[in-house]
Amino acid sequence: MTAGLERCSLNTGTVKLASLQEAVDATAAAGMGAIGLWRHQVQEHGAETARKIVEDAGLRVSSLCRGGFLTAATPEGVKDAVEDNLRAIEEAAGVGTRELVFVVGGLPGSSPEQPPAPGTDRDVVAARARVADRLADLAPIAAEHDVRIVLEALHPMFAADRAVLSTLGQALDLAAPFDPATVGVVVDTYHVWWDPELQASIARAGREGRIAGYQICDWNLPFATSALNSRGHVGDGYIDFTTISRWVAEAGYTGDVETEIFNEEIWAVDPTETAKTVAARYTEHVAPHL
Amino acid sequence: MTAGLERCSLNTGTVKLASLQEAVDATAAAGMGAIGLWRHQVQEHGAETARKIVEDAGLRVSSLCRGGFLTAATPEGVKDAVEDNLRAIEEAAGVGTRELVFVVGGLPGSSPEQPPAPGTDRDVVAARARVADRLADLAPIAAEHDVRIVLEALHPMFAADRAVLSTLGQALDLAAPFDPATVGVVVDTYHVWWDPELQASIARAGREGRIAGYQICDWNLPFATSALNSRGHVGDGYIDFTTISRWVAEAGYTGDVETEIFNEEIWAVDPTETAKTVAARYTEHVAPHL
Repeated sequence: MTAGLERCSLNTGTVKLASLQEAVDATAAAGMGAIGLWRHQVQEHGAETARKIVEDAGLRVSSLCRGGFLTAATPEGVKDAVEDNLRAIEEAAGVGTRELVFVVGGLPGSSPEQPPAPGTDRDVVAARARVADRLADLAPIAAEHDVRIVLEALHPMFAADRAVLSTLGQALDLAAPFDPATVGVVVDTYHVWWDPELQASIARAGREGRIAGYQICDWNLPFATSALNSRGHVGDGYIDFTTISRWVAEAGYTGDVETEIFNEEIWAVDPTETAKTVAARYTEHVAPHL
Repeated sequence: MTAGLERCSLNTGTVKLASLQEAVDATAAAGMGAIGLWRHQVQEHGAETARKIVEDAGLRVSSLCRGGFLTAATPEGVKDAVEDNLRAIEEAAGVGTRELVFVVGGLPGSSPEQPPAPGTDRDVVAARARVADRLADLAPIAAEHDVRIVLEALHPMFAADRAVLSTLGQALDLAAPFDPATVGVVVDTYHVWWDPELQASIARAGREGRIAGYQICDWNLPFATSALNSRGHVGDGYIDFTTISRWVAEAGYTGDVETEIFNEEIWAVDPTETAKTVAARYTEHVAPHL
């Protein structure tokens, strides 16, 4: 591990085409202290083996992506969501992280693979209420496993198809009924940089002990063909990392800083090169302000 | 004019390829009461002639799009913005509408034609402060001409390149120092439907006498190649027009309801057909809830 990179973490979504071992090797070679995993990697190897691959390289698991998709309106959909998230909680505990990132889901019928059919159920207010209900179902299970549900506000452009949770303030309102050790929030620059309430919401998250992660990547324009993949290396776009990192630090956050970039051009680059770039950008644009 | 369509208006952005006369004819033929214009049309004909074309067809001008682009950081940029908006105010008064929609501009260097260069000035907090300064410059001029500056919150996906004004609540905060007859807000479903604070912000806008327009179009997925043009006819996408229209009505709004759709496929359709579709969708999805 390189001095100054202890808190720097590579989310494997940034090197999507790499195997777990390749991603771990690239992260370790770049000198970072941690790696953020996705569930399919844990499922592929089993939690114990995945954990060993990470720990053998001298890394920590900063978080597991992702549980969630909680907006189903049918009894069957609710049951499936609770069961799948129980598995996600077990996987997080098994792979050695407390932080399980939740993408709460879009309008009913949405999935990670596709948007819901237009016009079937447009009631975003009711969908948000069901997210609160499912958190009440799942928080005791997470607490039992010593895992934290980490609510991720997604950019409002994903409100229909991926997450009806759209701002950090809304995430804090959803988290409010629960112990901060059981339900937290992640600050992801890509999703929240535009928010006029951002400074106040980050400060509130700090006061309430809820900041469970800081994820970084830049906002690129023009949009890629898939808007979901229109993210860039820190420093290549429009986000003010100086200011947001300072707000996060002032809120008392001392945890890992994960770079998570979805970008087809970056996926095509050798993972070792990408990890080096991630570490360099973190060192230049973020670390001085933490 | 058809009974029930008195408040229904066609924004000419929906029929972008039509001449002013063609757009006016299509709007009148569909039985609507009003039309929303763009500045280039007023400039092409002169305000007096443009006004006559509209009034001869028995229509009102519901609003003029658009002034704004207020975030310049240089003395020259500030001077240009104030001068251009003075012309926009004169054009609104000349063409016979009080409502001049403002798109406030993105990070410095943004323009309607292109995003700013990445990484030149990422300070969105400072850009927002300059918008407030320019409103203080322009509000007295608008008041002199009996024109209202109508602040339009744009979807947060346009925060870097088009509008650092991202929520209705933020628009109301910006408007707060000014007389509601001089600075108002427009509720545009495409831009604000996702906002967890929407019901509260619409109610506040009503209480404060600031609702100067209600613009409608739907949220389509997947995104079009240009995200700006990914809008649909009311009812084709994910927006809950029943609920939002009820909130707008409960807030006391009794003005025009403009359909503004940017969509290349819709632009390719005959304007008369598009106007009929707009009127039919308004009648089906919006009017019953107003």
